[in-house]
Amino acid sequence: MIKVTLVGRGNVSSHLAHAFRLAENVELVAVLDSRKELHPKSLSTSDVCIIVVSDDAIKTVGKYFAKSQCLVVHTSGSIALTALPKGIRRGVFYPLQTFTKNQDVDFKGIPLCIEAENKKDLGIMSTLASTISNKVIEINSEQRKSLHIAAIFVNNFTNHLYYIGQQLCEENKIPFELLSPLIQETVKKIGALSPYEAQTGPARRKDAGIFESHMSHLKKEDYKKIYAVLTESIQNTYGKKL
Amino acid sequence: MIKVTLVGRGNVSSHLAHAFRLAENVELVAVLDSRKELHPKSLSTSDVCIIVVSDDAIKTVGKYFAKSQCLVVHTSGSIALTALPKGIRRGVFYPLQTFTKNQDVDFKGIPLCIEAENKKDLGIMSTLASTISNKVIEINSEQRKSLHIAAIFVNNFTNHLYYIGQQLCEENKIPFELLSPLIQETVKKIGALSPYEAQTGPARRKDAGIFESHMSHLKKEDYKKIYAVLTESIQNTYGKKL
Repeated sequence: MIKVTLVGRGNVSSHLAHAFRLAENVELVAVLDSRKELHPKSLSTSDVCIIVVSDDAIKTVGKYFAKSQCLVVHTSGSIALTALPKGIRRGVFYPLQTFTKNQDVDFKGIPLCIEAENKKDLGIMSTLASTISNKVIEINSEQRKSLHIAAIFVNNFTNHLYYIGQQLCEENKIPFELLSPLIQETVKKIGALSPYEAQTGPARRKDAGIFESHMSHLKKEDYKKIYAVLTESIQNTYGKKL
Repeated sequence: MIKVTLVGRGNVSSHLAHAFRLAENVELVAVLDSRKELHPKSLSTSDVCIIVVSDDAIKTVGKYFAKSQCLVVHTSGSIALTALPKGIRRGVFYPLQTFTKNQDVDFKGIPLCIEAENKKDLGIMSTLASTISNKVIEINSEQRKSLHIAAIFVNNFTNHLYYIGQQLCEENKIPFELLSPLIQETVKKIGALSPYEAQTGPARRKDAGIFESHMSHLKKEDYKKIYAVLTESIQNTYGKKL
């Protein structure tokens, strides 16, 4: 039985709490408010304390654990393990997923990226992570940073491209739902082909006429810039220039 | 029974041919090579001739139909109806999907965007389109151009972001498959929320520290540019500046 305390009461924390409550061999000791309840006593009974707060609060909250005996981990994709206090048992427990309030997630399929400073602690984290996920992977802080940037490209930036697609539809009185099958197929395709092979469109075809026509059709400066840099990057990828 | 001839023998043409062969009330008269077989005789027996060639070949191939009696349509998202010869019955039959060779598609779910110059021809196209798709929509050339640009954002550009995500993973010896649940969830999310509501990440949070850290971590100039313009556009969307 691994005793766990969650520190932080946001979105990710509530999803983790839900998953741990359903897990076997885990006892969720407490879910604490990171700004109010961090008395050393309430933390001393746990094997693992998971700090689930915003990136810029990790260092501050971490200081409360400077004399902690338990394994202290954070859940951030972009903060190094060393942001936690020196001299204690430290780790990272990074769930690679986007969470939405009040929308259930199944942790079984969510990759949990773990890091620790010695084999024993890594073993504890691996055991703990495996109680809620089937995809536990050990990666170091440098890899995690790259993975987090990759996640920003495929999630944050992709979502913004959906937003632009929707805006272009709405401005022209076209229902955005029309694009739904295309969006689905784009994802499905990279299950069968690599993204390199799956690329289609005027940028890859080196179609200069279409590029000029689309650039002059787009009104927003931001959308023009995005169209231009992505077209340029696709062309550089396939060794073609306009 | 609508008699159809396809002109062009590429990827989209073969998918359309397959769909028409399975459809009721459609007779696929011929699938012609656009460079070889365009004798007026072989075209005269069709109700609708669908020119399925690359954008820059539409005008040239269209000229063969200058005296045609049948309804002549092309399938391009970005070429106006008026690219076909004046004085004949013209239309557009634009399937909004990405096609992959040798990979089956179900046309039933693919939006078919149709355009014609009079009600009678529009009626024929609507009847024809409905034999293979449940999503037939009438849009004009101006709307179609915007829709095509929107499709480039959500398909071509999104796929390139997947490519970048994969490159960042490979460079750091992380399996790209780790990002798969996140990619799936990003799409699933906009089924429940609008892309505006679904946006998360450091750009929306106005996290200047993360921005600088990621920009210096990225090595490729193209990836830096993409990171910067997409971050800027997200921030402008939410009224926040770094």
